[in-house]
Amino acid sequence: MEKDTTLIIFGATGDLAKHKLVPSLFRLFQQKQLPSLMRIVGSARTPMDHQAFRQLMRKSVETVEGAVDQGHWDQFALNLFYAAGDATKAGGLESVATTLSEIEENNANHLYYLATAPSLFVPIIRNLGQAGMASEDKGWRRLVVEKPFGRSQKSARQLNHELHAVFDEKQIFRIDHYLGKETAQNILFFRFANAIFEPLWNQQYIDNVQITVSEEVDVKQRGAYYDSAGVLRDMFQNHLLQLLTLVAMEPPSSFNADALRNEKVKVLSAIRSIDTESLVAAQYQGYTAADGVDSQSTTPTYAALKLHVDNWRWKGVPFYLRSGKALVRKNTEIIIEFHCPPHLMFDRVKDEDFSSNRLAICVQPDEGIHLKIETKVPGSEQETRPAEMEFHYRTTFEDMTLPKAYERLLLDALQGDAALFARSDEIELAWRLMDPLVHHLESNDVEPIVYEAGSEGPAEADALLTRDGRVWCSGCKHLNK
Amino acid sequence: MEKDTTLIIFGATGDLAKHKLVPSLFRLFQQKQLPSLMRIVGSARTPMDHQAFRQLMRKSVETVEGAVDQGHWDQFALNLFYAAGDATKAGGLESVATTLSEIEENNANHLYYLATAPSLFVPIIRNLGQAGMASEDKGWRRLVVEKPFGRSQKSARQLNHELHAVFDEKQIFRIDHYLGKETAQNILFFRFANAIFEPLWNQQYIDNVQITVSEEVDVKQRGAYYDSAGVLRDMFQNHLLQLLTLVAMEPPSSFNADALRNEKVKVLSAIRSIDTESLVAAQYQGYTAADGVDSQSTTPTYAALKLHVDNWRWKGVPFYLRSGKALVRKNTEIIIEFHCPPHLMFDRVKDEDFSSNRLAICVQPDEGIHLKIETKVPGSEQETRPAEMEFHYRTTFEDMTLPKAYERLLLDALQGDAALFARSDEIELAWRLMDPLVHHLESNDVEPIVYEAGSEGPAEADALLTRDGRVWCSGCKHLNK
Repeated sequence: MEKDTTLIIFGATGDLAKHKLVPSLFRLFQQKQLPSLMRIVGSARTPMDHQAFRQLMRKSVETVEGAVDQGHWDQFALNLFYAAGDATKAGGLESVATTLSEIEENNANHLYYLATAPSLFVPIIRNLGQAGMASEDKGWRRLVVEKPFGRSQKSARQLNHELHAVFDEKQIFRIDHYLGKETAQNILFFRFANAIFEPLWNQQYIDNVQITVSEEVDVKQRGAYYDSAGVLRDMFQNHLLQLLTLVAMEPPSSFNADALRNEKVKVLSAIRSIDTESLVAAQYQGYTAADGVDSQSTTPTYAALKLHVDNWRWKGVPFYLRSGKALVRKNTEIIIEFHCPPHLMFDRVKDEDFSSNRLAICVQPDEGIHLKIETKVPGSEQETRPAEMEFHYRTTFEDMTLPKAYERLLLDALQGDAALFARSDEIELAWRLMDPLVHHLESNDVEPIVYEAGSEGPAEADALLTRDGRVWCSGCKHLNK
Repeated sequence: MEKDTTLIIFGATGDLAKHKLVPSLFRLFQQKQLPSLMRIVGSARTPMDHQAFRQLMRKSVETVEGAVDQGHWDQFALNLFYAAGDATKAGGLESVATTLSEIEENNANHLYYLATAPSLFVPIIRNLGQAGMASEDKGWRRLVVEKPFGRSQKSARQLNHELHAVFDEKQIFRIDHYLGKETAQNILFFRFANAIFEPLWNQQYIDNVQITVSEEVDVKQRGAYYDSAGVLRDMFQNHLLQLLTLVAMEPPSSFNADALRNEKVKVLSAIRSIDTESLVAAQYQGYTAADGVDSQSTTPTYAALKLHVDNWRWKGVPFYLRSGKALVRKNTEIIIEFHCPPHLMFDRVKDEDFSSNRLAICVQPDEGIHLKIETKVPGSEQETRPAEMEFHYRTTFEDMTLPKAYERLLLDALQGDAALFARSDEIELAWRLMDPLVHHLESNDVEPIVYEAGSEGPAEADALLTRDGRVWCSGCKHLNK
């Protein structure tokens, strides 16, 4: 018999809960994808009754989604509750416990969601332990932890230590919402549900790999947090390295969480320590004037780096990663650039015009895959020109909208599937790579290169590739949607 | 200094000259692609002066192309001449010789084009030899021979013998207009100007290859010729086997005629004799009622067959070929079907729904390339669905119309580039493969399977693949344009 499940959201009045979690839950509810017996309890310090919380959430959902269907909302709201309390304080979980005992008819499963500021993670985790709320006697207990997961290998390890004092690893779901994106998941399907890419997916055929996560927005209201983090912590340690593992991993024997994560850990372990020479750190002009940002701040808002995966498959293939804020466009893409053909049998006027094959995996916004090939120019004797073979989600799956990352991840956590969540060793290994770079920048107070807001980023990022005889490529069209 | 060139068309009042050659020449002239000093002399038995011939050709061009530009035509017609005579009779070339001496100002090059009935090839070739018109003392002399080139290995060898008695192999250009098609040429550019296909192009990754040349038309007015030929001679010996060589050949070191044709010959030599069990021969209902067709005819208008290329690359990969008249659609396509992935790590409900990768090279009418890949169905856990990555000439090269096959081949012959023409050994090897099949059908008067006109062809052609656990695939859309 299926048990009731309750999702308890800590930080329920915060932005994440209001703008991502509850809207995602409501969408899932409307699509009848939530478990049939499911309740949601929001918790935060603000005193409020169930009704007030429901009103607040309705407003949030309407801000994100537009007007909601009254009937649907009423049904959804029936299972929406609120328990005020400071979960970081001793006894602060009592109101949650009381609410649970009031609304749950029998022994239910509990999914705890830490949607709070990261500084509250540890106290809440300890409290959950002390209150006996991590014990699985009466149903499963799972915990979703939001990013950032630490700010160094040391602090991540401490956080893991605190978590493991209360929860087993299999109860812990560390979110990296990039893994919930359809296009990120599809990297694995593209590689492993097709027979024709894997034979090419190695140093014999691939010249280099480029991963770009470009943001149009600046730090906005997140100045204070961002200024203490910087782009390496905020984007590279998690999103960029996660995307890299999906591209670089060996085929797992199955898609279960541990098989998958073992392979990702192997990739992270194989990455050679990144040389500070291989790092370009930059800051957009005007950053220091933002709210909450130190006026002397040297925090990088942009970085580009080169790294190597020292294993049989990738030896000698550079991976170039770049990410930044206040850039000309929002897009996330992965470029696989292949070697040129070993021998060109065509009489070409200019060899230098010849370009190699390039596979572009467009994670967002123009979700799809582009393959650049050379074709003969019609009417010419032996002239070639690049052409694209394209696949787009919006045309192939025109009947559907891509589900939001949080919808997928919430469902997975409810189902206990941790495949798309980061394991403790993954996180620590990713920090191991970032730590020396962050330390180099911070301990030397390295003055960042300045780039113009709304630009392509600093010229030094181009120079990083130019000195290897390469250039940053973009394979995805309609970038400025 | 560039020499004058004269193109001499024998059979100048025939369909080929009127509907293909002269319209192609006029298009090339308008595009300024013809040599600057070029004249055209038509020859046939009908008495006519230059002016009448120009009128006749203008009418033909207008039938094909619509109204012509008066100024362009007048300029083109200035270099259009006619010489009446029976080129098969002793002394029958005198009028041609006289005309040439009248219009040529100095020693010109001569390109002879045999656009006559095949029975006239040998007498004209002999006459050209006797008249000393093959001698290259005063400029090059080249000969274009139209299909059909013999009707068996023996007769093709005899024809080659007659040709070689008068012309060197390097002077001879045997036309297979399929090789002049942009999309056929692009097969080699696709394979060899890209680094990513060649590693997959072998028995390790390819399950089978399918070549379809489907015609919508029936035999029309060509009944008498067709009834003595049949589909194996009319389509397989030339077009289908030529397409096969382009798909199956090893990379040549250069694109020159002999390097290319050596590789094609290697493929044809490696094809195992085709078992009559692997042949399906059929005739469309109503064929025997066509003009010029024997009412008891057993001539096949459709065939499907399986063959093997016994070499390192293709061992164990069946090639399925089919072609016929009076079918539901006109299309020519090549399908490369890859193996399924060696291991499926996804939890799938139905394994049998999983389809392998398929590359479709659409030669006509929807010129382009389609690659069928599996992608994850958005929102599903691990479900996949086929999607297409596509390249189309009409969108990639929207500014241009694809040049007609004859335009390319005429230019190549004028430039002495024989890469897209069949060499004597190629032709004979292709006949070696067809002879036993033709002999089997004709000597046993095998009653062909009957298929409905306008259909997909006989069910027996499907059974040929079904017994191997395969099906005919179609990768090209917009087939019925």
